[in-house]
Amino acid sequence: MEISRDHPRYRSLVVRERMSELVRQGVVAPTGLIAHGRGEAFDYMIGERTTETAARAERTVAAWLLEARRPVITINGNAAGLCAEGLLSLARAVPARVEVNLFHRSPERVEKVVSYLENMGGKDVLGRVQASRLEGIASDRAMCCTEGIYQADVVLIPLEDGDRAGALVKAGKTVLAIDLNPLSRTALESHVTVVDELTRAVPNIERAVHELRDDPEERKRLILEFDNGENLRLSREAMCLTLRP
Amino acid sequence: MEISRDHPRYRSLVVRERMSELVRQGVVAPTGLIAHGRGEAFDYMIGERTTETAARAERTVAAWLLEARRPVITINGNAAGLCAEGLLSLARAVPARVEVNLFHRSPERVEKVVSYLENMGGKDVLGRVQASRLEGIASDRAMCCTEGIYQADVVLIPLEDGDRAGALVKAGKTVLAIDLNPLSRTALESHVTVVDELTRAVPNIERAVHELRDDPEERKRLILEFDNGENLRLSREAMCLTLRP
Repeated sequence: MEISRDHPRYRSLVVRERMSELVRQGVVAPTGLIAHGRGEAFDYMIGERTTETAARAERTVAAWLLEARRPVITINGNAAGLCAEGLLSLARAVPARVEVNLFHRSPERVEKVVSYLENMGGKDVLGRVQASRLEGIASDRAMCCTEGIYQADVVLIPLEDGDRAGALVKAGKTVLAIDLNPLSRTALESHVTVVDELTRAVPNIERAVHELRDDPEERKRLILEFDNGENLRLSREAMCLTLRP
Repeated sequence: MEISRDHPRYRSLVVRERMSELVRQGVVAPTGLIAHGRGEAFDYMIGERTTETAARAERTVAAWLLEARRPVITINGNAAGLCAEGLLSLARAVPARVEVNLFHRSPERVEKVVSYLENMGGKDVLGRVQASRLEGIASDRAMCCTEGIYQADVVLIPLEDGDRAGALVKAGKTVLAIDLNPLSRTALESHVTVVDELTRAVPNIERAVHELRDDPEERKRLILEFDNGENLRLSREAMCLTLRP
């Protein structure tokens, strides 16, 4: 499929074709494309830019990742398809473990996503062997890696299902989400929700990791002052400004 | 994939799985799933219900379809996947011609969608032979059927690309859209835009067709009083109420 460069939504169309190709390769689940579309709609409404409140949330996520004893970044098919290199780079910068965790889980898909990340330079990517279970969640979506999510104190979940975000919170983890939908259960249940598009959010978080590495005072201040309810309210407000200019 | 009935988004998940299955069958394009996701997000924001302004737009669409000399309803892969029976039933009620018109066009996919509609009871479905072109649109998306869109005076386009909506308007047609995104070019360029989910909108339009069939006065009043700018403003307003309760 040839995409005309003068189409007003050229960039979106290119990403869409790439995500569709990754479905053919088995990295992205077909219904992952639907989730991507939902993200597109919400991104459109925040003006396809990092809002001020998202920038603050991104710095707070960086602070949490640096304060963590055992930080883990989970990656599903969509996150890999959209931003594998950025997420792996962030994991190296923190450093944090990376665990592949799929909503539509099958050993074949896990293998595809893990291999995809390894081909992008990922080292020690967890996910092939999930021997532990999160409490409070039905179905095999509870499965996780013992030395990954199970033992983590802080988990960054880009694009996660609400059930699992809730289960992570119940399990006592500090949950940091990247989710363009400020009304989703993931957004509401997480401790810090970055309402921003993944390929903008992740480099911003990595930049903040470098800035905050030697600034424990600023990290503590960011964590202490952060109010996720207010953050989500301001994110919704930004969308309203697009709808009611 | 088994979907747990107690998942809070059970109905959405079932539709998603069905749309994904139709991708495997070749009826829905992979990127059609992304478009479906965008729709889901906007539907979420209007509260997954027919707003008052959408109900008025639906009655106005019915009025236009009845006033038309040569009404045509276009059906693409997503519209077929979500609402084939409803759209075919509406076409019979008006009566209007049905033309399959695809953004990701290939003879194989056209054949799949036309056959899909024929299997659902569609008669005289146009689309296999597209011998005419709309002016003002690059690429083969300009192609249309001579006795369908090309000769139509009124065209109902559920879930259409903005380029083509604009081309239909330029070609002098009255364009009636069903589009959950009140900010899309399709929504802005069309004469009447129903901001509602397809499977709610189409039965509402069919009901109004029956009610208005013998009421030319009411049809004229609806058409005369309809203001699409105001309709879109009220639709955006409804979304704001979700975001800023």
